[in-house]
Amino acid sequence: MQAQPSGTGSHLSHLYCPKSGERYDADRIQQLSRIGAPLLAAYDLASLARSWRPADLAGREPTLWRYRELLPVRDPAHVVSLGEGFTPLLPLPRLGRELGIGGLWMKDEGIVPTGSFKARGAAVGVSRARELGVTRLAMPTNGNAGAAWALYAARAGIRATIVMPKDAPAITRQEIAICGADLYLVEGLISDAGRIVAQAVAEGGLYDASTLKEPYRIEGKKTMGLELAEQCGWRLPDVILYPTGGGVGLIGLHKAFKELRELGWIDPSRPLPRLVAVQASGCAPIVRAWEARATVSEFWPDSRTVAFGINVPKALGDFLVLEALYESEGCAVAVDDDDLLAAQRRAAECEGAFVCPEGAALFAAARELRRNGWIRGGERVVALNTGAGIKYPDTFRADPPLLQPGDRLPL
Amino acid sequence: MQAQPSGTGSHLSHLYCPKSGERYDADRIQQLSRIGAPLLAAYDLASLARSWRPADLAGREPTLWRYRELLPVRDPAHVVSLGEGFTPLLPLPRLGRELGIGGLWMKDEGIVPTGSFKARGAAVGVSRARELGVTRLAMPTNGNAGAAWALYAARAGIRATIVMPKDAPAITRQEIAICGADLYLVEGLISDAGRIVAQAVAEGGLYDASTLKEPYRIEGKKTMGLELAEQCGWRLPDVILYPTGGGVGLIGLHKAFKELRELGWIDPSRPLPRLVAVQASGCAPIVRAWEARATVSEFWPDSRTVAFGINVPKALGDFLVLEALYESEGCAVAVDDDDLLAAQRRAAECEGAFVCPEGAALFAAARELRRNGWIRGGERVVALNTGAGIKYPDTFRADPPLLQPGDRLPL
Repeated sequence: MQAQPSGTGSHLSHLYCPKSGERYDADRIQQLSRIGAPLLAAYDLASLARSWRPADLAGREPTLWRYRELLPVRDPAHVVSLGEGFTPLLPLPRLGRELGIGGLWMKDEGIVPTGSFKARGAAVGVSRARELGVTRLAMPTNGNAGAAWALYAARAGIRATIVMPKDAPAITRQEIAICGADLYLVEGLISDAGRIVAQAVAEGGLYDASTLKEPYRIEGKKTMGLELAEQCGWRLPDVILYPTGGGVGLIGLHKAFKELRELGWIDPSRPLPRLVAVQASGCAPIVRAWEARATVSEFWPDSRTVAFGINVPKALGDFLVLEALYESEGCAVAVDDDDLLAAQRRAAECEGAFVCPEGAALFAAARELRRNGWIRGGERVVALNTGAGIKYPDTFRADPPLLQPGDRLPL
Repeated sequence: MQAQPSGTGSHLSHLYCPKSGERYDADRIQQLSRIGAPLLAAYDLASLARSWRPADLAGREPTLWRYRELLPVRDPAHVVSLGEGFTPLLPLPRLGRELGIGGLWMKDEGIVPTGSFKARGAAVGVSRARELGVTRLAMPTNGNAGAAWALYAARAGIRATIVMPKDAPAITRQEIAICGADLYLVEGLISDAGRIVAQAVAEGGLYDASTLKEPYRIEGKKTMGLELAEQCGWRLPDVILYPTGGGVGLIGLHKAFKELRELGWIDPSRPLPRLVAVQASGCAPIVRAWEARATVSEFWPDSRTVAFGINVPKALGDFLVLEALYESEGCAVAVDDDDLLAAQRRAAECEGAFVCPEGAALFAAARELRRNGWIRGGERVVALNTGAGIKYPDTFRADPPLLQPGDRLPL
């Protein structure tokens, strides 16, 4: 199973089960491991370390495909791109002062196709699915992932079937339906949607694109970490806050940093960034597990939060999220909806950033972690805003006065 | 008035009235010229041509600020950025085949802060306003420009007053209100909003940020042309389609190409791209003027279209738009709402691109122009999609079936 450098230069070597260590062939369609765990992609990092240097990135296009050696797609002809990635890393000086964090930054994942970081997973996941011959896929979603996968699948010529809670953000329905995907709503949560998809997969032979049931979405999310490292000049920040539902992005960040360390692109003597899983008080299974130093989470009954993307009562990859928190000496924090909505407003007022409610939760969490000293003075802190506020029109109510033509402004 | 290279390297020299030719000092606040025309920014291109090369762009950040020598902001400390620009230029092979245009590309301006190309004008306009000492601004808007200016103004610490038609896209209300701007709706069109703002400006001493009433928004829009040229390897496409309301982007594209020609960065022996102003049949003053070979447009009464951003019955810069069409040997085309909505759907189905209705109008226009031979076989055609479809939830109605937990998919 030695990796052959290929058209893209991908050094993908094999897949493996992180629970059993068992290896799987990466060049055929795979879903979960034999024991029901997510499969992870491995690369021939030793070989890559000899041939690939940060300077090789100069002049490459500002998308996530600039890291193609560390991505699973082998043939450039299979890359399905809408121009995703290389999102800005923005200083937030005024909000930072308010929170007592001088070195506060935001990586803004609202500035990607579909307005959500889910585009990264979809771009890489759909590209690799096409490369492996997939023609039909299905998945449950809280909205944004389904929208991204439906649109990228349309561009790839793959037929998509998407099931989502009827309370998911309304705009994602339009995104999914307008590109011709088969969309179903369910009177329930993403876990209900997941059971419906699982049955259809078992009966209909569809490719299961559910979170972590295919191995490549995480590789797309991983590129957030690669970009962040490059944007920081290969000197990583001290703390990264991430809104945690399924947790794929957090697992991906940690995987990215470990791969960069193996490549020798970041200093192995420095600790990796402390990862913070931020959840809503109304759905905080990872926080509860982390507080108990558990290795898996428990299903969170009657979960609810306005931050719809992190309303995930039990994540398939919970053990990987918790492992990343323990390994990085990070933590997990829950914030109330009222606090995250107030933080959403302050980010807009102070910085002109209209972030999604999931992203806003990070600033509420940062305030708390600075107050209790977990974030120390002078530390460099990056909040990973996972999407654009414009996808959530109901989280802020505007009530402007109505004028008639010829009226004056009350200045 | 010789330009002094400065902190940013800006070679801004002066402002001038394109009607009278009169010069104005660029380093104080200016609005319209003495005869009521928009002022345009001029640069010391002769000096810049000697010192600046395309190779100098290598390694610069992928935002519009990479062209800072051709932008008006002199001090980097005044740059107000949310990471805007360097949007992807995407091939549209399947949609292109359907339209008979093999070389069809889309520059996707949905992938910027606020999800609309208005962010470019706001970033440069607000930055320069801050540099010149503006503390309060006001403007009328059809929604997206107001949202962009409000958010960038918040980041700059400038207070913004925005007036918009009550029928403008609802999400833009939230964008404007959440960042603390003063927002008013008006029972009417953008022209009614404009009159209210004009009175407030006259009485209250506010900076008037209305389209083309300040000179720098167009400089931000111009960067679409600079990027396009760089992304095409300094060999411009044959045709560029642009959805035309106020028309600032079209004027900016043309200005960009002429400046690049003077710098010697593009081949002066090749014709400039033929610019196409695309309007809606329900509001087509530029099309009517172009058909009459007129130099100005007439107010279009009772204008209406689902493509709200191009519902502009009379543009202040109409004479500049028409001049750009004549100079570039372009044309103007009107499309029906039904056709643009159908094109919006086809773009999503074929390419996974959920474009705004204004952007969709371009594909309807391209179909017509190819059919009547104005676009010739083998030409390279770029559609400039001005925003993300997600900002217009009402232009497509999704009506998915509702399942109960435990239901099966009808596969």
